Amino acid sequence: MSYNELRKDYLLNRWVVIATERSRRPTDFSKQKSEAAQTTVCPMCVGNEGMTPPAMMLYLKDNGEIKKAQDPPAGERPKNWLIRCIPNLYPAFSPPKQLQDTTQIFKDKNFGYAIGAHEVIIESPNHDEDPADAELPQLELLIRAYIDRLKALSEKPYVKYVSIFRNFGKEAGASLSHAHSQIIATPMIPSLIQEEMNASKTYREVNGKCVFCDVLEREAAGPRLIHNNGEFIAFTPYASINPMEFWIMPKKHAANILELTDGEVSAFARTLKASLKALKDVVNDPPYNYGFHLAINKEAEDYYHWHVEVYPKLSIWAGFEVSTGTYINTVPPENAAESLRKTIKF
Amino acid sequence: MSYNELRKDYLLNRWVVIATERSRRPTDFSKQKSEAAQTTVCPMCVGNEGMTPPAMMLYLKDNGEIKKAQDPPAGERPKNWLIRCIPNLYPAFSPPKQLQDTTQIFKDKNFGYAIGAHEVIIESPNHDEDPADAELPQLELLIRAYIDRLKALSEKPYVKYVSIFRNFGKEAGASLSHAHSQIIATPMIPSLIQEEMNASKTYREVNGKCVFCDVLEREAAGPRLIHNNGEFIAFTPYASINPMEFWIMPKKHAANILELTDGEVSAFARTLKASLKALKDVVNDPPYNYGFHLAINKEAEDYYHWHVEVYPKLSIWAGFEVSTGTYINTVPPENAAESLRKTIKF
Repeated sequence: MSYNELRKDYLLNRWVVIATERSRRPTDFSKQKSEAAQTTVCPMCVGNEGMTPPAMMLYLKDNGEIKKAQDPPAGERPKNWLIRCIPNLYPAFSPPKQLQDTTQIFKDKNFGYAIGAHEVIIESPNHDEDPADAELPQLELLIRAYIDRLKALSEKPYVKYVSIFRNFGKEAGASLSHAHSQIIATPMIPSLIQEEMNASKTYREVNGKCVFCDVLEREAAGPRLIHNNGEFIAFTPYASINPMEFWIMPKKHAANILELTDGEVSAFARTLKASLKALKDVVNDPPYNYGFHLAINKEAEDYYHWHVEVYPKLSIWAGFEVSTGTYINTVPPENAAESLRKTIKF
Repeated sequence: MSYNELRKDYLLNRWVVIATERSRRPTDFSKQKSEAAQTTVCPMCVGNEGMTPPAMMLYLKDNGEIKKAQDPPAGERPKNWLIRCIPNLYPAFSPPKQLQDTTQIFKDKNFGYAIGAHEVIIESPNHDEDPADAELPQLELLIRAYIDRLKALSEKPYVKYVSIFRNFGKEAGASLSHAHSQIIATPMIPSLIQEEMNASKTYREVNGKCVFCDVLEREAAGPRLIHNNGEFIAFTPYASINPMEFWIMPKKHAANILELTDGEVSAFARTLKASLKALKDVVNDPPYNYGFHLAINKEAEDYYHWHVEVYPKLSIWAGFEVSTGTYINTVPPENAAESLRKTIKF
């Protein structure tokens, strides 16, 4: 039939029009090269540590050894770092100042204080060492830093969720161009994650298994697979809401990344690097956002399954999208997967 | 307490961080003037009617009289138009080609065909006659055109929702700079509207009244009011997810705009023009999207209440927003309302 397709997300009550009728080729977006944010002096580069707050966590290079430093002496700003985790200077969510705050976060069902944390992870001493081009050992360190901060933050009594995300390119919201990720800890479970949890919990109750495990099995065998390295798969989701969107999902069922083995950290780093490099090569280095979807609440362990969603910024969500929550995607995910699959290299 | 605020939408399970701690002034955005889309020859200007499909509905100027022409003879493209409603050349949703399609839209719970309609309303023969600067009689005609198309589309058996929206400025997704709105009819109720319906239905069952009527009463008396002309109020919503966001809501309870009186059409036009003009003056003509929220299903008449949400495009929804459904707004709606209230003129 010669109509565009309407597809619904695996879990969310979220529809997308897949423009099969007048779809665009992945390479149509080549002109959308991400524009680097302007900086005169980069506050994240080596030597400029004084321009940012002291780190709460560092990976250091010390006589050829890699060492982790947690909460280094106040005010100390070593220069031999590989990864620097610092508080965001303009935090959206802040730690409580007095202990009693933690029980006073929500005043009523529509109002609370933005208690939590907002941190920045500087991913490398090298300004441009983004994951697509990073050395694997450095990318593994970044993933270890994600795990470290997730562990530290999820133990706080006032934290109910931890969002780990990355903005690349000015159009995707990166205000500084030095390779960095951000972590925001929130005192509630955000609605998108909560809706996924509700749906995956119901699925588990009805079907006796994890919905993501089922999605994985299906997508690993189909036309939306980009890559399968035995431990992780990269695929374009059935109801992708963005052109060239892809997800990375571990085959092993786990609600979050806290228990990743060394081998899994390495496999994840390889998949992340290779798929972002393929995106960069197919679409000419586009702006993108990626975000982890995970659970830190015990009860979700059975039914929630962590993964990363990568959203290239190749279209604008305009009046229709923002007033309906329904999306229009001009690149069918099957076409996106095909071009990424042909390009991906290890 | 010196924290940012966390606020939840009136109805949606959607949280926003209101950056009270380091908020931006409305005038901080002045540099974000909307960039006009590039066009060599404008296909929407008078004289170029041949560049677009024939109209399915027109308002014509005929010897000083304004006339409405519905489905003019095929292929005819009169030049004496005031408003032209045409099919979108690249529709996201399309009318069914055979009548039997209408029962075959959804193949299963996650897949359907994008059956519906996608139309463009050219708002004026004058290229730049955007609502902020439009002559009132012309803006009233535009609203009449919205009503006409809503009526025609909502009578189709395959249409469950009609989205009326406007994109202004390239950054807000307007690919052509000639003043125009769009209408998309869908075969399902979009998730954002469905969630509002569910919540307002529950509120009605529990409290015996319309939640929007209650919101109206509260906001008309508070610090977020921009303007109250007796028939409509313009206000910045409590949990605004965008800097300078505002809503326009009729005081008279109605699920949609089909039964607006002449006086109400005029009052709505005045409110729309004045508030968009105030936005233009405070923030230097920013890009924006507006969208109607309405119901065409009979059963929602009691509990749903139409309104327009205006989203200035002054920030980027980045990794955190797109992976959590939680927003960060750097202009407290009380500050936005104050500056718009001081600036609005009639």
